[in-house]
Amino acid sequence: MNMNNSAKKFVLIPDSFKGTLSSSQVCEVMSRKIRQFYPESEILSIPVADGGEGSVECFISASGGEIIKAKCADSFFEESEAFYGVLNDGKTAVIELAACCGLPQVKGRENPSLTTTYGVGQLILSAAERGCKKIIVCLGGSSTNDGGCGAAAAVGIRFLKDDGSDFIPVGGTLKDIAKIDISGRNSKLDGVEMITMCDIDNPMYGKEGAACVFAKQKGADSEMIKQLDAGLVHLSEIIKRDINTDVSAIPGAGAAGAMGAGTVAFFGSRLESGIDTVLKTVNFGEVIKDADVIFTGEGRIDSQSIRGKVISGIAKAAKAAEKPVIAVVGSDESVDEVYKMGVTAVFSINRKAEDFSLSRYKSEANLEKTVENIVRLIKCFDGTMF
Amino acid sequence: MNMNNSAKKFVLIPDSFKGTLSSSQVCEVMSRKIRQFYPESEILSIPVADGGEGSVECFISASGGEIIKAKCADSFFEESEAFYGVLNDGKTAVIELAACCGLPQVKGRENPSLTTTYGVGQLILSAAERGCKKIIVCLGGSSTNDGGCGAAAAVGIRFLKDDGSDFIPVGGTLKDIAKIDISGRNSKLDGVEMITMCDIDNPMYGKEGAACVFAKQKGADSEMIKQLDAGLVHLSEIIKRDINTDVSAIPGAGAAGAMGAGTVAFFGSRLESGIDTVLKTVNFGEVIKDADVIFTGEGRIDSQSIRGKVISGIAKAAKAAEKPVIAVVGSDESVDEVYKMGVTAVFSINRKAEDFSLSRYKSEANLEKTVENIVRLIKCFDGTMF
Repeated sequence: MNMNNSAKKFVLIPDSFKGTLSSSQVCEVMSRKIRQFYPESEILSIPVADGGEGSVECFISASGGEIIKAKCADSFFEESEAFYGVLNDGKTAVIELAACCGLPQVKGRENPSLTTTYGVGQLILSAAERGCKKIIVCLGGSSTNDGGCGAAAAVGIRFLKDDGSDFIPVGGTLKDIAKIDISGRNSKLDGVEMITMCDIDNPMYGKEGAACVFAKQKGADSEMIKQLDAGLVHLSEIIKRDINTDVSAIPGAGAAGAMGAGTVAFFGSRLESGIDTVLKTVNFGEVIKDADVIFTGEGRIDSQSIRGKVISGIAKAAKAAEKPVIAVVGSDESVDEVYKMGVTAVFSINRKAEDFSLSRYKSEANLEKTVENIVRLIKCFDGTMF
Repeated sequence: MNMNNSAKKFVLIPDSFKGTLSSSQVCEVMSRKIRQFYPESEILSIPVADGGEGSVECFISASGGEIIKAKCADSFFEESEAFYGVLNDGKTAVIELAACCGLPQVKGRENPSLTTTYGVGQLILSAAERGCKKIIVCLGGSSTNDGGCGAAAAVGIRFLKDDGSDFIPVGGTLKDIAKIDISGRNSKLDGVEMITMCDIDNPMYGKEGAACVFAKQKGADSEMIKQLDAGLVHLSEIIKRDINTDVSAIPGAGAAGAMGAGTVAFFGSRLESGIDTVLKTVNFGEVIKDADVIFTGEGRIDSQSIRGKVISGIAKAAKAAEKPVIAVVGSDESVDEVYKMGVTAVFSINRKAEDFSLSRYKSEANLEKTVENIVRLIKCFDGTMF
């Protein structure tokens, strides 16, 4: 890589440093230090969304677009205002589940047997009504355990009890579903592609399922967890019978109180890891064609990182394009395979030997210093110095 | 720096990582990783001597030369065998004080009121007799507190008591010196330049002097320390009167039980920091003229490093030659001034957030990994990849 030309392009595509820095913050720091040494450079920031809060902003930062405000139900069916993003192509919407039924908004009232994803369905419909043909739903940080039934109800899918009456199931009433009727699903969703971003592997129910693993942090006690889990088992059976879709064993179906399963069953969505969605949505292969350096990063690089996490996806794309990828990480426990995958070099942000209990408060300063030294080194060897 | 040519030269000139890796070990690790990516490269290792054990080896590794074995007195005047180095020019000798009267050799018998530097004088004379015209004496790790009187006696300088009889003063008998007679100094030393390598600032005597600061670790109790200190005060006065040299306030004169003062007074030596001696001796300015990259390093880089420690000397020389200097350090607490001085970039070897009590055992592996990533990055931007 000889950068002995004046125009340089840096692509920044870091994950968050879990517990210390968001991916947007990482981009901001990297960008600032690069600008210091390459003031004329083009810097494209793609802060990788993990599906939680900030996901919409991430896509818009990477691809351009606008924030659409929309009225919708909150976790307790009360009217509120949320938002979603429409990217510059006018055809792609990005919806954060957490924007309308996130856990922070119900603080003090947490109850996954009562909360609903109804608002998410309203946002999906709103995007479809605007003409969006591709909807990315970002799971993460939900207050719900309704298997996506609320969202389904909002777009016209009917849930019927034994007595034939319809209702909007919540976590605590999933067991009352006798029949699901999808015939009334709003036709504006026909032909709309849905992608559900989800970075966990948990199945819909069972020991590793939505209720058993995540309901406690949403306010459930052990008795409620049992009921929620049983409700999801029941929902899974009805879906299989009435929609002819087996969601019982899909990895990631348990995300967001089994909203993962719901998006598959009710919206024909596919589940994708955040990084895959981001790389496709921003057209990463094209974006890096004229790049000189790619920076990525995450809290920790280890053998996990090699199996489908952020850095691996980026490295593969970069390798194909013969572009250097520099990974800046909180903790480097990498193995040689990262290099084979396409990572050029890995640098840890730790500047001295100290425990995380101390260094965590210095993450931004340490990242800044590390990036500065990397950029100084590049600058020294790219033919623009001396 | 465009290294788009096939022949590359790396110069490695690290200090030790105190408490974990010697400078030789640092060179070895760096060299191994560079060789992995630049198998054809020329690598010159200059492991910076700090004056203690290994100093001779360091100079020989950097400049070439041979080890000369020589019989001489040990700390307790017993005959033993020690060594010194003669560099490839045949004119420069390097002597480690620790080779004949080091603290480890007297383990269990430590007593700075009885030990002598007599053997050092014998080694000096041996080198002069071989035709060496420049003698580098490396202080560090001594068992003695004799102000260099032993070494002086070995080359013919006489120490007289009140009764006119001569004797070889040791720490406990410095107070008995009534007169110093240098007229009998061996003429083979005439015209021989002596440089004393010393990286401490302690004066000959007083609160910060040789006895008060260092004699305890050499086996002295507080009463003995008082006597040793008084002995050095007395020696200083006699030196001033009889040799017309004031060693009372020279920074570094306290090194090696005031051997620092002795080399100045009895051998006309000058005191120099280790790095200055190394840079001059290996002719660093010439050595880096055709270098592509210089690697340095130390346990910690901080504002101290800027004031006369290893990295600063190297950076200044490299800046003058417009060569990149990469500092690899245990702990990076550097300030922006290091860059102004000529350091290109600073990388810490810490790969994760953990306390030194844990990371100290991983220093070699961490250094290796860090150097590998730096070299991978250089390789990516030097025009030889992609």
